[in-house]
Amino acid sequence: MNIKLKSLFCPESVAVIGASNSFDKLGYHVMKSLVEGKFKGRIFPVNPKAREVWSLKCHASLGAIEEPVDLAVVVVPAPLVPETLHECGKKQVKGVVMITAGFREIEDSKGETLQEEIGKIAAMYKLPVIGPNTFGYVNRTFGVNASFTPEFSRLNRGGIALVSQSGGFCHLCGFLAMAQRMGVSKLMSLGNRLNVGFPELLKHLVEEDEATRVITLYIEGLDNPRELLEAAKSARGGKHIIAYKSGKSEKGDSASRFHTGSLAGDYQIWKGALRQAGILEVTSAEQMIDAAKALDVCAPLTGPRIAVLSGQAGPGMIAADAVEKAGLKLARFSPKTQETINRLLPPIAIRSNPVDMGPAWYDARSSLDILRAAVEDENTDGVIFIAMFASANVGLVKALAEYMKNIEPFPKPVIAVFTAPSGIWEEEIAELDGARGISVVPTPERAGAVMGDLLKADLLRNKRLAN
Amino acid sequence: MNIKLKSLFCPESVAVIGASNSFDKLGYHVMKSLVEGKFKGRIFPVNPKAREVWSLKCHASLGAIEEPVDLAVVVVPAPLVPETLHECGKKQVKGVVMITAGFREIEDSKGETLQEEIGKIAAMYKLPVIGPNTFGYVNRTFGVNASFTPEFSRLNRGGIALVSQSGGFCHLCGFLAMAQRMGVSKLMSLGNRLNVGFPELLKHLVEEDEATRVITLYIEGLDNPRELLEAAKSARGGKHIIAYKSGKSEKGDSASRFHTGSLAGDYQIWKGALRQAGILEVTSAEQMIDAAKALDVCAPLTGPRIAVLSGQAGPGMIAADAVEKAGLKLARFSPKTQETINRLLPPIAIRSNPVDMGPAWYDARSSLDILRAAVEDENTDGVIFIAMFASANVGLVKALAEYMKNIEPFPKPVIAVFTAPSGIWEEEIAELDGARGISVVPTPERAGAVMGDLLKADLLRNKRLAN
Repeated sequence: MNIKLKSLFCPESVAVIGASNSFDKLGYHVMKSLVEGKFKGRIFPVNPKAREVWSLKCHASLGAIEEPVDLAVVVVPAPLVPETLHECGKKQVKGVVMITAGFREIEDSKGETLQEEIGKIAAMYKLPVIGPNTFGYVNRTFGVNASFTPEFSRLNRGGIALVSQSGGFCHLCGFLAMAQRMGVSKLMSLGNRLNVGFPELLKHLVEEDEATRVITLYIEGLDNPRELLEAAKSARGGKHIIAYKSGKSEKGDSASRFHTGSLAGDYQIWKGALRQAGILEVTSAEQMIDAAKALDVCAPLTGPRIAVLSGQAGPGMIAADAVEKAGLKLARFSPKTQETINRLLPPIAIRSNPVDMGPAWYDARSSLDILRAAVEDENTDGVIFIAMFASANVGLVKALAEYMKNIEPFPKPVIAVFTAPSGIWEEEIAELDGARGISVVPTPERAGAVMGDLLKADLLRNKRLAN
Repeated sequence: MNIKLKSLFCPESVAVIGASNSFDKLGYHVMKSLVEGKFKGRIFPVNPKAREVWSLKCHASLGAIEEPVDLAVVVVPAPLVPETLHECGKKQVKGVVMITAGFREIEDSKGETLQEEIGKIAAMYKLPVIGPNTFGYVNRTFGVNASFTPEFSRLNRGGIALVSQSGGFCHLCGFLAMAQRMGVSKLMSLGNRLNVGFPELLKHLVEEDEATRVITLYIEGLDNPRELLEAAKSARGGKHIIAYKSGKSEKGDSASRFHTGSLAGDYQIWKGALRQAGILEVTSAEQMIDAAKALDVCAPLTGPRIAVLSGQAGPGMIAADAVEKAGLKLARFSPKTQETINRLLPPIAIRSNPVDMGPAWYDARSSLDILRAAVEDENTDGVIFIAMFASANVGLVKALAEYMKNIEPFPKPVIAVFTAPSGIWEEEIAELDGARGISVVPTPERAGAVMGDLLKADLLRNKRLAN
């Protein structure tokens, strides 16, 4: 089946089959997502028992809608799904998001039978289906939230797509992403993957989605992993692919079987296969976000020589440890850079790498000048820049943000750590994060780790492109 | 020298030598910490050039104060410190916090000489000195913020003491602790450790500080690590000791030399020595906070059998992987518990371990009943409880918090993950975190990891007590 996904993700009009005014129905929350997410196209609630849903005219059936419908979001009970899919086919919708659960993932074998049945119907009409057993998708680039979680409309827009086998993981990662200001293009759970799986999505994101620069995958288990790996291997262009594989343990494996209907498989084989396919493996949601963010907004890290500049010596030492733990090295500054640093910092500070910028606390201009000197040094490949809030340096990050407005993006990755109590530096950090090639992470340890991932990702992508 | 620390940390009166009305002086911020931190004793600003500081009468010298002074916080320039210390001795202050830097940590050998000189003066008057080259200390139990960072007065009160060789680490850890609602007793940086070092602090915290249940140490390098290790080994009672050792790399080692005047030493030797001393080693600030929090508020984990209960299957699988990665096992429920779960959850959910509590989204009572059954099961040693926010389950955590008001603290550790966008569930999470033996961590991966640390900490403490 030749799957066309562009219209599914960029619909002009959406029907919600099973739309509801009752808070305890998912059809309520899907309507809320579309309405409050300020979807610009037409929204058609469908429910034979209502005249209005969310103050919009409600239709008794999909067929009763006179205008064309691009996307149908299905939230009716599982037994009604076959009939609903026939209606979708007849209405010539271009895509379906099937939130309804109760198919291949349940213990009862009737679920498997029902999934086979709806698979045939979808094939008959050539209907691409996200799900069943999904929370839906959000396309932040196009501005549509076709999910039961309205809060995903708060996600920053950006270049990162998350394709997950689990809706719960999207919620975990999505909310962590909000807190870390990660920029998202698309976020979705594939659920039971009736006819749209990882390979189809990968192809779509690589070839048809210009906004996506980094593709992140959360995989529990696949019946045919080879398809995904081949799709990754043949992905041209410069997009990075990151994968998080769960279900590593025996118990996890059997949980995966029940969760989205596929065995998890041997983790060690997965590990090697992902590397072979040029995919960066991560082992936590936090690592995934740190790496994806940096790959999205920073220049590539093309070598292992890292400079650590810190407003406090301790966090600088921690970052230096983390750099070496990640298999990278602390750069040795060129004489020119060292001169600049020695001019800007008094001899009471540690002026080799890691640099203790303590004496520049009150002096954002010097901090910025040291940062620029470290980035421009031919002996460095990337820079970690750290500042802990202390009452006396409260103006530092604001002044830095001000100065940085007038500079070109850094041609090497700059990973920054700005730690402060809640309510302090927040606007300024939001302004700096993602701008001018800077990505902010929460701790010095994670700054070192993400540098390691940046270098690995670059090597993996180059290997993939060279094939 | 027989060091008495209790009065240093619980002063009735504090003099700030170098108090200032100028924002760009640290003496301004120390005054702010004391005044805004609502210190209940007397505050005496000392500065010959001012009549009033922070609206308090200013004294020309320490000697000019008529009342007794328990604690002197020193923020004058280094060359004035010897004279100031003499004054402290004559005034019979019970302790000194020396924020002033420019001693053993600087490149210039004059620093070393000056530190030797003030060491002799302190010994002459038997003056215990925190510092020099410290940001100060905060005693949340007693209610005194003797540091240049007023925001530390926002730290939750609790049973965790942080003794750090680096002020920057206190700021990193302190602000992360605020975001994670960690309860702090004392937070301090020892700086150059003129005469108060880790062994003295450990003894004080174990023997004299009832509020402290968990002692966390951040160590860069020590001239005589054996003293600390012996102090830890001989620490009686049930207090846990956690250490984070930085300066692991060669470069870090030389940075440590300049930062607080001691070589970092061989990391592998440290690793073994910490374990021998019954100290739990952690390798990141986040891990330190997760472990300390759980040790402070949860019952001990006395075995490896963990139950994972999750409102979403994906995060449950991730936690299950993390449990096994931490060297623990997924518990097999007793028939009674399994019956309870099967009664409360329909067969469409995964009901073995990890349990998918998806169908109990709208039903906090069932979620709580499953949690209680899992905790009471003789086949479990600890429980991980996970809920991701989704619009439809917005009431879950509030109802849980409500139900839990009436239950006894859990007799086994319960590590919870509640993930939501900012502004949602925040109050409820704050209410649940730390109450009834529950500790909240940010991700399922960290829930599994902290269970591993709980078990290790218990084994290490028992080993220490058995010696």
